[in-house]
Amino acid sequence: MSIPDSHRASREPAAARIFALIRDRILSASLPPGEQMISAQQIAREMGVSRTVVKNALDQLAAEGYLQPGPRSSLLVAAGAVLRTPPAQEIASAPPGKFVPFRFDLIDFRPGVPDLSRFPVRLWQRISGEVWRQMTPLDLSYSQPEGRAELRREITRYLTAFRGVRCQPEQILITSGSTQALSIVSRVLLRRTRPACISEDPGSAESRQIIAAMGGRIVPVPADEKGLVTDELPQRARPSFIHVTPSHQFPLGGTMPVQRRVQLLGYAQRHSAFIVEEDCDGDFRYDSPPVSAIQGLIPSRVIYIGTFSMTLFPSLRVGFIVVPPPLIEEMRNAKRRADFHTAALEQLVLARLIKDGYFARHLAAMSKNYRQTRTLLLDALHRHFGGEARILGTASGLHVCVRFPGIRFTPTLLNRIDLAGVGVYPVEDHAIRKGRWEDTLILGFGMLDDRRINTGIAILKRCLPAS
Amino acid sequence: MSIPDSHRASREPAAARIFALIRDRILSASLPPGEQMISAQQIAREMGVSRTVVKNALDQLAAEGYLQPGPRSSLLVAAGAVLRTPPAQEIASAPPGKFVPFRFDLIDFRPGVPDLSRFPVRLWQRISGEVWRQMTPLDLSYSQPEGRAELRREITRYLTAFRGVRCQPEQILITSGSTQALSIVSRVLLRRTRPACISEDPGSAESRQIIAAMGGRIVPVPADEKGLVTDELPQRARPSFIHVTPSHQFPLGGTMPVQRRVQLLGYAQRHSAFIVEEDCDGDFRYDSPPVSAIQGLIPSRVIYIGTFSMTLFPSLRVGFIVVPPPLIEEMRNAKRRADFHTAALEQLVLARLIKDGYFARHLAAMSKNYRQTRTLLLDALHRHFGGEARILGTASGLHVCVRFPGIRFTPTLLNRIDLAGVGVYPVEDHAIRKGRWEDTLILGFGMLDDRRINTGIAILKRCLPAS
Repeated sequence: MSIPDSHRASREPAAARIFALIRDRILSASLPPGEQMISAQQIAREMGVSRTVVKNALDQLAAEGYLQPGPRSSLLVAAGAVLRTPPAQEIASAPPGKFVPFRFDLIDFRPGVPDLSRFPVRLWQRISGEVWRQMTPLDLSYSQPEGRAELRREITRYLTAFRGVRCQPEQILITSGSTQALSIVSRVLLRRTRPACISEDPGSAESRQIIAAMGGRIVPVPADEKGLVTDELPQRARPSFIHVTPSHQFPLGGTMPVQRRVQLLGYAQRHSAFIVEEDCDGDFRYDSPPVSAIQGLIPSRVIYIGTFSMTLFPSLRVGFIVVPPPLIEEMRNAKRRADFHTAALEQLVLARLIKDGYFARHLAAMSKNYRQTRTLLLDALHRHFGGEARILGTASGLHVCVRFPGIRFTPTLLNRIDLAGVGVYPVEDHAIRKGRWEDTLILGFGMLDDRRINTGIAILKRCLPAS
Repeated sequence: MSIPDSHRASREPAAARIFALIRDRILSASLPPGEQMISAQQIAREMGVSRTVVKNALDQLAAEGYLQPGPRSSLLVAAGAVLRTPPAQEIASAPPGKFVPFRFDLIDFRPGVPDLSRFPVRLWQRISGEVWRQMTPLDLSYSQPEGRAELRREITRYLTAFRGVRCQPEQILITSGSTQALSIVSRVLLRRTRPACISEDPGSAESRQIIAAMGGRIVPVPADEKGLVTDELPQRARPSFIHVTPSHQFPLGGTMPVQRRVQLLGYAQRHSAFIVEEDCDGDFRYDSPPVSAIQGLIPSRVIYIGTFSMTLFPSLRVGFIVVPPPLIEEMRNAKRRADFHTAALEQLVLARLIKDGYFARHLAAMSKNYRQTRTLLLDALHRHFGGEARILGTASGLHVCVRFPGIRFTPTLLNRIDLAGVGVYPVEDHAIRKGRWEDTLILGFGMLDDRRINTGIAILKRCLPAS
């Protein structure tokens, strides 16, 4: 395999070394402007390399303007190539990343991680191969900011059938996960008018950070076991939007009943505010049929956000927004400026997965799986804590909340539990007004099996002060 | 394959229909609060469906709070479920997307599209298969916002060897293309202090929109055939950063010589501003070795942005930022809030592609290919226009610029060329101060072959007024 000229100099370590050596001497003025370079032959001899190597280095120096032609085919050091600050010799040390996605060294009750050991890798791989075989140059080029039509069509069908959402494919905007969805929605809505945004308290701390990063001013409204307490919506806030998780409130786990939905819609209409309905794990519902989206009640007032992170896998990074028609143009522009569009391949694989029925089957199988795991967790909690623990939000999703009346999950206590080998997550971390949820933990169960759940809850029990 | 209960109601059209029917009657108060529902048996008989179907619909209505238990196991319509605005029957029509990635119905000289017909689809597919075979649950879960370590390591090696960039893998932040890179960089830098940002004029209109969307105030500085005219940098602007494309200025195509680089660095240091160096197609250089990045001169002062859109394919959506260590934490946080992280699979495939040497080989083969295509284009221009056309920016990248002295590319003229079957792109679209580049076209050649280039230039010649 031959390397063309244009890549030779930099690929050849010797030439690159000589280039850098001479360049740095010019930049630091130890080879002053106007100085005539000694011949390539001489350099080659002195450095113990071939003349071709030196020639390549000198060519590059000339191309970048360090050297210029002099008399009798000599090369002169060009003027204006001296840096006041000498070229950096050292690079300051850079911090390593801190993010840990899931701790396999613990029994990790982290919420928001699906059971990835059951993901149908081979199926995905097969469909991915089929998609690649049919890829055209057009598929490899830039795509529409709103996402591939194939996927928007399938998402529309799925949302209509499973989630009670009412929309057309043109209303779907494919995003890089629900994080980007919320970021784009916040940017567009907050830019329009008012910076205030009503958030559930407790509610996802991550979501609030995304909204705040776009200039949102968070107005907290309490949430309880039935989601946002709509009676407490402030009459004077003039919010741009109300961010809710009605199908499975994060973190408390409740489902918002229709009465509150009606109140919320009335409030939104009176205040000309939008409702941003985030629904990330509402597909998994255990004791009753899945609850329909608020979006289905008044599609013009609600922006619906979904993701495939919980139903398929998080590192896929595909989510979507259902946008009311008057906002479509602005949302597409915001997406285009954020990252042009989401990668095409995943979109095409996903479209086929839904179209061919595999997605519905996977959802059904995972629902069954999670229902069993949830039962194991509830049994273990009951066995170890009996009436001492009060369990919330068990009807859907991949986590439950547990209140331990009289216990305060202080950093010291959490650290003790961690050292004992168990990861638990306090609701208090997601509270805006502090001090009301210090006795409550979020226990995610998506990734855990029978043995880990039992051991984990037994260890938790041992770590808590006797009540 | 059995569907668990939780998905039955919504998957079954009859149950969903009955659910929606009763729900809408409750929402519109035609079934008033407190009313006792007729029995499931009666509904089943009236609607001509099975009792199980009705039972599923009623269960869901109860789960969502529309119905509540009444005396003698009857069901009552719950209070508070009446919507003032009746549920929307119609969805306003949504506009279809407008974006066209590349026009195959034209001879399209669109810049910024690589030759996708030569992309090694099978190789990518094979490596992708290998990566999937080795995927662990951890790979499927959330990943670090900064991107996969495997890819950051390979990008560091590639940048060091090919682009003269000096960095550690910890300084690399993987982004969803260069669009997101510029968006994140703008957000972090503009938040810090000052809203002003110096841009090349003419310079990419798209880039300016991204910067402006993050609150940047664009201060134009002229660019010519050697990139930004550093003599014209304003002494009073106090910019947050200077956005430049020194290896292949967009759109004019020039390479910035070291003298201007030194001036630019001096300016940035005096004004405590950063230089944002965008380098999207500098890998393809035809007449001399590739030019090193400004970043290599003073790594602490320069933020380097790259992408794989031009070297591999645009719909991949993978780019990267080389971040000076003091800004790393903030950039990672901004990335996390933008979309958490870029999809993992592409990162792993790309890492292996670079590591195993395929990427360097592909670059070399494409460079050779583009050099030939460029020669064809220059020949065609020379044949048809001779001295009438002045060609700029031929040394690198996937487009050239051509000045046609005396010609004004008005919308009427551009439309005439379009109707004749040729797509050309005026530099004037990318100019801030208008009126200086009306005679200049951008001609991209990445996707075109011999025949199309010749026909396209012949048609262009026919469309222009005789001079």
